[in-house]
Amino acid sequence: MTHAFDEAIALATQDDGSFVGRTSPAYANMVGPYGGITAAQALNSVMQHPELLGEPVALTVNFAAALADGPFTLIARPVRTNRSTQHWTIELQQQGEPALTGTAVTALRRQTWNGSEQPMPETTKPADVALPAPRKGTPWIDRYEMRLVSGGFPAVWDGADHSEGPSQLWMRDNPPRALDFPSLAALADVFVPRLWLRRAKFVPLGTVSMTVYFHADSAMLAATGDGYLFGQSQAQGFTNGYFDQSSLLWNEAGQLLATTHQVVYYKE
Amino acid sequence: MTHAFDEAIALATQDDGSFVGRTSPAYANMVGPYGGITAAQALNSVMQHPELLGEPVALTVNFAAALADGPFTLIARPVRTNRSTQHWTIELQQQGEPALTGTAVTALRRQTWNGSEQPMPETTKPADVALPAPRKGTPWIDRYEMRLVSGGFPAVWDGADHSEGPSQLWMRDNPPRALDFPSLAALADVFVPRLWLRRAKFVPLGTVSMTVYFHADSAMLAATGDGYLFGQSQAQGFTNGYFDQSSLLWNEAGQLLATTHQVVYYKE
Repeated sequence: MTHAFDEAIALATQDDGSFVGRTSPAYANMVGPYGGITAAQALNSVMQHPELLGEPVALTVNFAAALADGPFTLIARPVRTNRSTQHWTIELQQQGEPALTGTAVTALRRQTWNGSEQPMPETTKPADVALPAPRKGTPWIDRYEMRLVSGGFPAVWDGADHSEGPSQLWMRDNPPRALDFPSLAALADVFVPRLWLRRAKFVPLGTVSMTVYFHADSAMLAATGDGYLFGQSQAQGFTNGYFDQSSLLWNEAGQLLATTHQVVYYKE
Repeated sequence: MTHAFDEAIALATQDDGSFVGRTSPAYANMVGPYGGITAAQALNSVMQHPELLGEPVALTVNFAAALADGPFTLIARPVRTNRSTQHWTIELQQQGEPALTGTAVTALRRQTWNGSEQPMPETTKPADVALPAPRKGTPWIDRYEMRLVSGGFPAVWDGADHSEGPSQLWMRDNPPRALDFPSLAALADVFVPRLWLRRAKFVPLGTVSMTVYFHADSAMLAATGDGYLFGQSQAQGFTNGYFDQSSLLWNEAGQLLATTHQVVYYKE
């Protein structure tokens, strides 16, 4: 049986080199698709491109318009290919209009000195963290096993500050699926918007731009397999309609697989 | 007299709507231009565009090739304009080839609940922090007054870890110049690469992709004027040729003006 994630990111190649994909009901959000699945679809247009050099290092996607349920066209262009790096532009169109713009950098990696300034925090083991109660109306949430250590949805929407330090959780695809670059990009967007934690008020909001830096290469992804990732997320500034949120994702062995940043529109 | 920064980011409009600019000797780096000035030039192509809606919220630039000294073409396209947001693609070309790709989001901001999860650290006042000794061979460094609180270049390149917590400095244009969006984008790139601090080894490196989120609006820029900004920077992961660095920039009043992230190639 095909995993829902593979179905969701499947792309059909067109004669002109563009791809056709479609929004996935399995990854629907309250309105439109989960942003993480759209980011994964965008990245997959690069991964599926016949001219791909190397593996993803950076991905930026800008959500230019709400996606309508149904098909879309994805155009990935390798605009500059160097000896070991390749620069991509990405555009997702519906009805001929861009609904997402993006760029990616892929690269052939070589072994170097490695390190981290962000060791994984000491935390509870995944099996010791309870699964949250199911939430209705947001199908994509059921596509992930999310064991919240801190910073889930506020228990009460009482207008108080529920942030209490960074948001932390264990997470993986549900059912489990071996990690790859698109699924890592999708997991980078699972965090509860910090605005809701800070204010415990259900303010309309939506991600405007999201960047993922991949520290994992194929070997680290293979070593991670379908194991849990530990995610930590914190906001930075909230000013006049836009806030940003920065997150880190490690595997159970404590390797930093990706870092991610997003800027989010909020209504009030 | 025109400020060197204004000269550096000046763009001439072409009949087809593209711009012509040129690399600035005043902002030269060891090889090619300072990345921050290139980011500022790219943003300025959006700022100068006759169809601009609102003010910058997000900017991503990807350094696709080393820039040659001399002229370049900048093409900014408003690919999607919504009621209050506008999505841009940016391309910088030399000899008809893309040397930089980018995207930007601009928006009309409205007053909302504001906050921060990143208060400015307690620190020494700018006047109480000594100016560093001048450095030869990197003209752009003279374009900034940088008062290093911690995390300047290693005093000795001895292969030890000189990082000692995040890099912190007070900074402003030299001579002082009232802050605007392009100069804020340029200031977002001043930080010493953390790899050099971590290893005190002069490994070749270069920024591949850089994202700036603007928390400042015009009013906050005006309130900042030509005062100092406080910058703090820390790396996250270093894996097989690429590391990322995240930075925050506040004004003297403690307002978070911008956050910025970059992924940097390193050779070994």
